[in-house]
Parts: sequence; structure tokens; C-alpha cells
Amino acid sequence: MNSIIQSLLNHRSIRQFKDIPVTEEQLDTIIKAAQSASTSSYMMAYSIIGITDQQKKTELAEITNQPYVKDNGHLLIYCADLHRPAVKASKEEYKEMLPNLENSEHFLVSAIDAALAAQNAAVAAESMGLGICFIGSIRNNIERVDEILGLPDHVIPLFGMVLGTPDHSPDQKPRLPKRAIYFENEYQEHEQELDAFDEQILAYYQSRTSNSRNDTWTDQMRRRFTHPMRMDVTDLVQKKGFNKR
Amino acid sequence: MNSIIQSLLNHRSIRQFKDIPVTEEQLDTIIKAAQSASTSSYMMAYSIIGITDQQKKTELAEITNQPYVKDNGHLLIYCADLHRPAVKASKEEYKEMLPNLENSEHFLVSAIDAALAAQNAAVAAESMGLGICFIGSIRNNIERVDEILGLPDHVIPLFGMVLGTPDHSPDQKPRLPKRAIYFENEYQEHEQELDAFDEQILAYYQSRTSNSRNDTWTDQMRRRFTHPMRMDVTDLVQKKGFNKR
Repeated sequence: MNSIIQSLLNHRSIRQFKDIPVTEEQLDTIIKAAQSASTSSYMMAYSIIGITDQQKKTELAEITNQPYVKDNGHLLIYCADLHRPAVKASKEEYKEMLPNLENSEHFLVSAIDAALAAQNAAVAAESMGLGICFIGSIRNNIERVDEILGLPDHVIPLFGMVLGTPDHSPDQKPRLPKRAIYFENEYQEHEQELDAFDEQILAYYQSRTSNSRNDTWTDQMRRRFTHPMRMDVTDLVQKKGFNKR
Repeated sequence: MNSIIQSLLNHRSIRQFKDIPVTEEQLDTIIKAAQSASTSSYMMAYSIIGITDQQKKTELAEITNQPYVKDNGHLLIYCADLHRPAVKASKEEYKEMLPNLENSEHFLVSAIDAALAAQNAAVAAESMGLGICFIGSIRNNIERVDEILGLPDHVIPLFGMVLGTPDHSPDQKPRLPKRAIYFENEYQEHEQELDAFDEQILAYYQSRTSNSRNDTWTDQMRRRFTHPMRMDVTDLVQKKGFNKR
């Protein structure tokens, strides 16, 4: 197993950081690595906002309900960005573009482009001994995050990422078995694999050193989906000119 | 610069492969690496379908308009998958789940989860000397691809990935300058950076050994968005129970 695979398999989300800043040079390399990822039809349909302003970090920590967001880690917000294609268009061209730009296809493209870049950034950061955590909970109040970042039409915040020098070493969370996530030639139902995974997860939660509890994966998922969550994401996304048709 | 960063920065999309199969062991490692990526709230909201059936590969090559898809590379299709949370739910629970599962938030979550996994797979493959190419053009006929893969409700195909032993060494395509993609604390307009990038791209296309042409990045983007493209993605996505509210 080569050192790159080792690093990928060793990933765990880090939520406590030492008081050591991410250097400009590290950040430069991380952004370069992000940009080296594949991008759909050369669109590079994303932007990254680094948050250094303490007031903004504090408000984002409140929105995300993740106190460590305001602390010593570096905070990046990944945005879907379809604004650039229109920057130099004439009014007539812009009018023609909108129905084509604002469809679900390009909402998908920009989200995927941003995520590919972000994962490369994560891998790069971890290769330098930094730890990272994705912060999907910026979408707890996506409209306010959009305002904080001053995003124009056709740019929306998708998720955050905190990075810094790890100050803890959490357990790795088990993943679904390969047979439940990889199929050959066509999709296969895999209820048995989910049952076996639930048993594994129950044992994992029971044996965990912190936050020990009785829980299974499917129960977690059912709980998540039996109450509404972030139903307002739709509105903000469409208001900003994504996913309208 | 460590070897992981070097590998990330060296990425280029590979579209010609030697007649050397990807081994089961390599594939296992690639899928493990994919699964090691972060996942939103432990949802693991994706599946991967490996296509080995030659008839399916041939049809997918036609749909994607990429002949090499049917040849000697290994073909993976990454899917958004929100099917698992409902597998063991009662009828009543399932009915309660639907409005919460079928919103834009979870469409985003599943697309992002799939892309994070896919980028890890790409990095893992490249670390073993394999080359990869993302295939967004499976969405040229997303409904037919959905049929070919036999995907149930709440599972949709997002993009493909071809991988194998590289049989060419294409140029690296320039990326937007950091100043056009990374901003501190708030979004900044960057028309000047786009102008400078267009000049760079014009020179790049003119000097390219194959497919030399006169073109800029913003012209490419404008051409893309002045005609409708994959407007039917919306319908298939909603028909399958994603992005409905």
C-alpha cells in the first residue's frame, strides 16, 4: 500500500485544533491542489472564501452550531459559482444564457465541481499533517451565510471546511461494507448488508470511549428523515439563480 | 513539496488506455479510498456501479459520445443514493420521510457525498499509476442510463469515471489564477483576472500540439450557455424522488 492510499484510508474528521496558524504557503498549496481536480467541461464552477475576520467566524460558529469554527482552525467556505460565464456577456447574451445556466444540470455541475476541489484540498491538507472537517451546517441558515459572504447572483455557499493542526485523535467511523455501496452492472438491493452493518454500528457505539450509546445506522437515518431539515435551501438556491428549471 | 501534493498537482484527464485490466485488488483499494472520504452526517448517500458488461459499455459510449468508454479502461458510474434510509422503514415512516428526503438539501448532500468519494477514488487510482477521466456526459441521456443501471427510486446516476493504464500524456490545462477563485472574507468581482486568464488561454490553445485553435475561456463559457443543454435532467431527477421541493 503506497503512502497516498495510507493517507486517504487514515482520514478522520478533526474538530479540535492546536493554536498553530495555517501558513500562507500551506494555504497556497491547498488551493492549488483544489484547483488541480477535474472540472466539468472546464467550467471551474466554484469559488472558495477564506474567513479570517473574527466577527464573521463567530457568527458562522453560531449558525453552524460548531463552536470550534470560530477558534484556531482556518475556515474555508466552498461556493457553487456560475457567475463568471456572465461577467463579460452583453445584456442580450445574458438574457439568452439564463434559462440554460439556471437549470438543475448546472446546479449539479457546480456542486460536483466544488466538492471535487474540496476533497483535493482535504487530501492536500492531510498530507501536510493538518486535519480537516467539512461543515455542512452552514446550510442551517444558508441565506445569512450568503449575505455574510456578499455573494452575487449565481454564487451560493455549499459547505465549509475547517483545517488546522489536530489536537485530538478521534476513532474512525466504520463505513458501509463494499457489497452495500459497489455493484456490478446493475443496482442490487442490499437489506442483509444493512442489517449486518447495523449490528456492527451498534457494537461500535456501545464500545466508543466517548459518547457511548445504543444506536444503529438505519435508526439514525430514519430519525434524520422523519423531521423536516433545511427546507429553505430550495428558496435561497432558486432566488440566487440556481436549480430554477 | 510532498509526494501526495505532487501527485495531486500532476493530474490530467486520461482518455486513452493500454490494454491492461484494472485488477480486483486495485479496484478494492480504490473503492476503500472512495469510502474513506468525509460524508455528510454519516449518510454515505452514494453508490458506485462498475460496468463490465460489454453491451452496456458500448451503449454508454454512444450516449456519452466518448468512444474510449467502451474500450479497455474500467468504467465506474457514481450515483446519488438516498434509497437506503427507507429500506427498513414501515409504510407510515416512509410516507413521513418523503417530503424531507426529496428536498434540494438532500439532493445537494447526495451529489456532494458522491463527488467527495469519487475524487478520493481518482487520487487513489493516480497514486497507483492509473489515469482517470470523469464522464459527465452520461447525463446526455440520464433517463436511459438510469434504466441501464436498474436504479430504484431515490437513486440517480450523476457521472462516470473511466480508469486504466494511461496510453498518452496530455498537456495540463491551465486553471484560473488563485485571485479569481479564492477570496478573503467576502466575494470579489474579478473581471481583470478573467481578462488576463483569457489571454493566457488564447496563447495555450494556439500553441497546443493537437487541436490548436483560437479561443478564450469566457468565449467557451458563453457558447456553452447560449444553447440549452440537458434540460431533461430536471425531469428525471424529480421523477426519481430528488429535488422535488
